[in-house]
Amino acid sequence: MIYLDWAATTPPDPAILKESLETAETYYANPSSLHQPGNRAGKKLEELRKSCADLLCCRSGQLTFTSGGTESNNLVLSALLKRREKGRIIISGLEHPSLWEPAAALKPFGWEVKALNPDKDGRIRPEKLARLLTDNTRMVIIMAVHNETGVIQPMEELIRTVREKENETGRTIHFHSDLVQTAGKTPFDLSAWDLDSASFSAHKIRGPRGIGLLYQKKPVAGIYTGGGQERGIRPGTENLAGIAGLTAALKKSAAPDLQAPSERMNRLIDRIRTIPGARILPESRSEHPEWYSPWILSCALPPLPGEVLARVMDEAGFAISTGSACSSNKKTRTRALESMGIDHKTAFSSIRISQGPLTTDEELDQFAKALKEQAAIVGRAVR
Amino acid sequence: MIYLDWAATTPPDPAILKESLETAETYYANPSSLHQPGNRAGKKLEELRKSCADLLCCRSGQLTFTSGGTESNNLVLSALLKRREKGRIIISGLEHPSLWEPAAALKPFGWEVKALNPDKDGRIRPEKLARLLTDNTRMVIIMAVHNETGVIQPMEELIRTVREKENETGRTIHFHSDLVQTAGKTPFDLSAWDLDSASFSAHKIRGPRGIGLLYQKKPVAGIYTGGGQERGIRPGTENLAGIAGLTAALKKSAAPDLQAPSERMNRLIDRIRTIPGARILPESRSEHPEWYSPWILSCALPPLPGEVLARVMDEAGFAISTGSACSSNKKTRTRALESMGIDHKTAFSSIRISQGPLTTDEELDQFAKALKEQAAIVGRAVR
Repeated sequence: MIYLDWAATTPPDPAILKESLETAETYYANPSSLHQPGNRAGKKLEELRKSCADLLCCRSGQLTFTSGGTESNNLVLSALLKRREKGRIIISGLEHPSLWEPAAALKPFGWEVKALNPDKDGRIRPEKLARLLTDNTRMVIIMAVHNETGVIQPMEELIRTVREKENETGRTIHFHSDLVQTAGKTPFDLSAWDLDSASFSAHKIRGPRGIGLLYQKKPVAGIYTGGGQERGIRPGTENLAGIAGLTAALKKSAAPDLQAPSERMNRLIDRIRTIPGARILPESRSEHPEWYSPWILSCALPPLPGEVLARVMDEAGFAISTGSACSSNKKTRTRALESMGIDHKTAFSSIRISQGPLTTDEELDQFAKALKEQAAIVGRAVR
Repeated sequence: MIYLDWAATTPPDPAILKESLETAETYYANPSSLHQPGNRAGKKLEELRKSCADLLCCRSGQLTFTSGGTESNNLVLSALLKRREKGRIIISGLEHPSLWEPAAALKPFGWEVKALNPDKDGRIRPEKLARLLTDNTRMVIIMAVHNETGVIQPMEELIRTVREKENETGRTIHFHSDLVQTAGKTPFDLSAWDLDSASFSAHKIRGPRGIGLLYQKKPVAGIYTGGGQERGIRPGTENLAGIAGLTAALKKSAAPDLQAPSERMNRLIDRIRTIPGARILPESRSEHPEWYSPWILSCALPPLPGEVLARVMDEAGFAISTGSACSSNKKTRTRALESMGIDHKTAFSSIRISQGPLTTDEELDQFAKALKEQAAIVGRAVR
């Protein structure tokens, strides 16, 4: 089985798991306990936090460990429940369900949720964002790298647009970005992006499952509360083993080499384009390859349903997906693609191929060859 | 260092960690993915859930994996945010901050929170609960085994009291119980207790950190939402390695032998009683030893502050705590003890000794001896 679903989750790195295991055994005490084993665990926790802060170019006090990207995203939105002044939340049409759904859940509490759709190339235009920014806009949510198509957003310009509106009105607007497909995969630097908050996950970069990070420029607690851990931002006994794994994963994936995966991806795109009826999503990807993450590709062979194609490719020995694993069971799975103007039929026919640092040229070549064969076989059956 | 803070967290069992590690490596795919590796992970997830359900005597569909006891507790209370009809929440004075604080956080949303204090022996009297049950009571929260004193509540009677009120008014009342210090430590059986929900944690029974369980008679989602995992109850990629560790920990701690720890604990209590001025909390513990968990003991040497005593015992080589690790940094740490009528000075002077399956007779004997010595030394210095 050739695994090409690295955007869903990654085979964990044995060295990272080992680090995690050793931390569990050595620093077994509760970091909140005041005795010596507790102190040692507490010190280790802060050392790991400092390492993460250095890797992400922020301050330790701005980082909170959570159970993953989904919790980080929910935490940010749940904090709005405690605000007296309601207002508008602008959310890009590309967001993960862990932002899209919690935003929608705020509506009964008096919040207005406004979708911001990208252009046909998947990119969000700052002018379009500017038009949606009202005096009562409290939050803007835009993921830096899209988990289904790999579209990289012009974050600097989008952030600048929001800050300009702030200067104009004198009211703050919280800018949140889901960086789960960004950290360890494409270059970024929290000190260069004036974000208010950002989410990270370990298991997308070969770290353990069940651990993530939340960056907050000015830490604010969500609705979950308890024992005061993580400076009151995130309650629950700290998962030190997971945190050690996350730190190791961030360290190992820092400054990823994009040359080889980019070349591999470009060759794959070229080969898929030779398949009759095949479409790269968005179509314009080849015009501006620098706007797309080399790790993720969306393509379609309409009218073949993506699920059928993913299944036959699975049987042929390739693990790919029809979009985010988090929505692969749902009818909403075409939302993001449709938000960039892709028609429902094409979106419904889409598959996602995502590679990782262990993926080889040969694997993608085999995949392209198999896709061509299967497309012909299934295509004939459908017609 | 002799570790006597097992109620805060436990040294993980190497065999359990190994099981967790092997699961991470073998079932690396996302259980929500539809390809073969994803299917295998998804099947493994449901096998593990079934094992947990069998061990806890409930149905698989009633169990949701969370990041731990704190999240399970918060999930239950956050679900109330979505209810139109507000009402009364009755919460025992003994509860963990992860229930006490989220309950308090519901007040601005129109909920009334009523504290239910135990008697001097730490036990909650069903009559007292009955008096607080109003027609608009929506939830009752009582932990089965107290994390600071080991008090075991008369759960059957307390649950019956609530069900009788339901029959009288025809309105349902949700009964939630924090079973973090119960599962794997004292006998219980979800099929015998008609609870609506209950929380569990792996790291209190030698499993990994960052994983827990929520039992719900009828599953209801909390406020966090996302990719639809865990049947929509708890979003986020499932932490399969953690879940395997939790399952192994539940299995290993099922039907714990209480004979040895009870004898050990009784002898410790006898020895502490020989220390001048020493008090066992609550005092009546020896009259009804069956009302207290043999794993946890609270005692005090007033006017010595608990923190001073814990520190000198730490320097003498014993890791104990001044109460819950989750509130050891806070001024609220005497709340639970004071709720059972213990005066503030005595509560402030309390320490908690908690043993585990690896604790030996010799360790507790050494502890009692050292406590006597240190109490004399520090006592002289204070006077």
